[in-house]
Amino acid sequence: MLGWGGAGLALGAAAAGGTAAALRVGDDASPSASTGDAVPFHGAHQAGISTPVQDRLHFASFDVTTTDRAALIKLLQEWTAAAAAMTAGHEVGAGAISANEELPPDDTGEALGLKPSRLTLTFGVGPGLFEKDGKDRFGLKARRPQALIDLPVFPKDNLDPARSGGDLCVQACADDPQVAVHAIRNLARIAMGRASIRWSQLGFGKTSSTTPDAQTPRNMMGFKDGTRNIAGDDTARLDKHVWVGEKDGPGWMVGGSYLVARRIRMHIETWDRTSLAEQEDVFGRDKSEGAPVGKQREHDEPLLKAMKPDAHVRLAHPDSNNGVTILRRGYSFTDGTDGLGRLDAGLFFIAYQRDVRDGFVPLQTNLARNDALNEYIQHVGSAVFAVPPGVRDKGDWWGKALFA
Amino acid sequence: MLGWGGAGLALGAAAAGGTAAALRVGDDASPSASTGDAVPFHGAHQAGISTPVQDRLHFASFDVTTTDRAALIKLLQEWTAAAAAMTAGHEVGAGAISANEELPPDDTGEALGLKPSRLTLTFGVGPGLFEKDGKDRFGLKARRPQALIDLPVFPKDNLDPARSGGDLCVQACADDPQVAVHAIRNLARIAMGRASIRWSQLGFGKTSSTTPDAQTPRNMMGFKDGTRNIAGDDTARLDKHVWVGEKDGPGWMVGGSYLVARRIRMHIETWDRTSLAEQEDVFGRDKSEGAPVGKQREHDEPLLKAMKPDAHVRLAHPDSNNGVTILRRGYSFTDGTDGLGRLDAGLFFIAYQRDVRDGFVPLQTNLARNDALNEYIQHVGSAVFAVPPGVRDKGDWWGKALFA
Ligand code: HEM
Ligand code: HEM
Repeated sequence: MLGWGGAGLALGAAAAGGTAAALRVGDDASPSASTGDAVPFHGAHQAGISTPVQDRLHFASFDVTTTDRAALIKLLQEWTAAAAAMTAGHEVGAGAISANEELPPDDTGEALGLKPSRLTLTFGVGPGLFEKDGKDRFGLKARRPQALIDLPVFPKDNLDPARSGGDLCVQACADDPQVAVHAIRNLARIAMGRASIRWSQLGFGKTSSTTPDAQTPRNMMGFKDGTRNIAGDDTARLDKHVWVGEKDGPGWMVGGSYLVARRIRMHIETWDRTSLAEQEDVFGRDKSEGAPVGKQREHDEPLLKAMKPDAHVRLAHPDSNNGVTILRRGYSFTDGTDGLGRLDAGLFFIAYQRDVRDGFVPLQTNLARNDALNEYIQHVGSAVFAVPPGVRDKGDWWGKALFA
Repeated sequence: MLGWGGAGLALGAAAAGGTAAALRVGDDASPSASTGDAVPFHGAHQAGISTPVQDRLHFASFDVTTTDRAALIKLLQEWTAAAAAMTAGHEVGAGAISANEELPPDDTGEALGLKPSRLTLTFGVGPGLFEKDGKDRFGLKARRPQALIDLPVFPKDNLDPARSGGDLCVQACADDPQVAVHAIRNLARIAMGRASIRWSQLGFGKTSSTTPDAQTPRNMMGFKDGTRNIAGDDTARLDKHVWVGEKDGPGWMVGGSYLVARRIRMHIETWDRTSLAEQEDVFGRDKSEGAPVGKQREHDEPLLKAMKPDAHVRLAHPDSNNGVTILRRGYSFTDGTDGLGRLDAGLFFIAYQRDVRDGFVPLQTNLARNDALNEYIQHVGSAVFAVPPGVRDKGDWWGKALFA
């Protein structure tokens, strides 16, 4: 065989039948050079929630197609191994250049030579895994967390079932979109015959942040988004609002969180015809600096009563919602054009919270009824998932405690 | 008014009614800090063809909706001014924070604080501008270049009209996708009432390169893509294969080029079940290093007869096509999932050439008939555009010579 070049080391390991995953190495990269920006996969919490927000997203929702509990468990074990490898900057299994040329490669190869790019893979389970069409599909019905409710229908919702729901989800975030796309694609491939992608969403630009960035990112409406969010190192607020606690239960969810995803389409063309004054009124912040009405700087404390009663920030603020606080981690999307020549663009909203009933639901109930922003947006996709705690060690896997 | 922060300088200029575009400046960026990675807009050729390939793409095709030649000319003048501003890292017109709060801002604002990110905007005109449904819409029919043919239908084409054709196009490339998306959106907005987006395509990862990169990018099939391409500084080959020459005519196209865009869907799931040996046979190169069959290194000269007769590289090589040579500049795309749980992913192929009849057409005729790759791909979108030469100076605009 020819042309293995610098990949010799990794290939050696694979060819020797070792279980060590092949490293992604390019022509001129040494194996160690490619692991510099990896985010640890193992830990008390899954990465991708309170860890620093990466630039790009590929989010996938899966339908479980097998009816066999053992097959589902095997899938989750294989997924976990692949996720641990990919987030560390390795290839899946024996890699794209397996020793046996007559077999399909274990890894699809398009991330060969790329850095880990802070890839995180965050796994969740949807309501359908516990019960679907009245059926207890995998003997898990009794283990469904009370907090994992089916979301109510909110006023003005216009949800597309083909972009909603799902039995399992994986949120892939990375600074290089090719790394995020590669990860979802390889997980989908591993799932073949057991689960298939129901819908997926690319996000080209982060909005909210969980670190005090030098610069707050702007959303597709041109406003800074993520100014007031829970910081990733604010353990007190994370424990209070994001992580499921011992007392919350069920046991298998302690250290986990609940994820709500909403595909929110923006009526870009209408927004772009709106005056600057109206735009600023809608949010209750100014467009350039991002300062709350009546204040000078972005991070000044908002004075809610200085804002219009229907301003987004006023309505979304904890003080208007009995303290309700969520961790936001959304991404801007643009998916080409709809049939009417309008950009299909908006915000793929992602929120994490300790209990959906004390987080997204009351907040969105308030916003859906009163928010001035509603004139310019529409919720077109929706999903909710229970996100288990982190994978502790090599013997652990995504959802192990759920199936225990 | 409050909260203008660091944007004061640019605002001052705008408020003073100056024609100078507002600079994109963030909280802590000085105006000059944001112009470091700008690609010059003016020149003999449009940027975005032989200039170094950026990481991300937003490509838009427009239908002209006005029937008024003067309105069309005005649009092109406004577009040119906006493109010159945005590629230099400025906002459109008076910017997102215009002096008059009662008007919609001139710029949508989501690129405020971002760097130019090597943004290039490359403009082209499609066959429909010269003649549509037998009508000479703008008195341009006699000026249509002979080289701007309507592409023939190739074997196995499965083209979606909603993703094909168009009267005008803009190719936006930038290292930051938000900058490319922002540019197309603002051009679409300026066009309101005169032209509207027919289709648009995001590309998340470059494939081909026009510079000898340290590392050749990989496409969604996991293979290095762009190994053999025309380098951007190879003026001899550019003049021979890419730029329209004096003798080619028409005069308004001299220094320009012709662009073919093809949305090529990959049957990812089938490909991923294919053995490594078959994958390497399909291309005639090995997957790890990218070396041609029988050779050691990626950049070794291909030995065509060592490859299978239907290998993609063998069939696409100039020696198999009487010397036909194109400049490739394509991007990988992933647009979620189709109705059947398969990723809607592939290659948004872009080629530049001096004459489509001596470039893409004979090459694709050969490939569509014989290429082993056809089992794994399908062409689902197609468009061709005449790309005029560069905008020379401030008095010049996109297509000026065409309308002269
Ligand atoms: C396309 C839809 C949306 C857009 C464009 C948007 C935009 C914004 C912007 C610009 C801010 C101010 C800056 C900041 O603190 O981040 C903000 C704040 C906020 N938004 Fe949204 N948002 C959207 C939807 C939602 C939804 C659906 C929710 C929750 C149900 C939500 C919850 C919040 C919260 C909690 C804040 C912070 C309020 C505070 O504490 O000051 N947003 N949003
Ligand atoms: C999804 C579709 C396609 C894929 C995945 C693909 C992939 C590749 C790969 C991996 C190479 C070898 C590396 C290189 O030199 O860049 C290559 C070479 C090439 N391809 Fe394609 N290609 C596709 C479609 C096309 C089409 C439609 C054309 C033109 C009609 C084309 C023209 C070429 C040319 C001219 C070469 C260089 C041949 C040489 O001089 O050695 N390709 N392609």
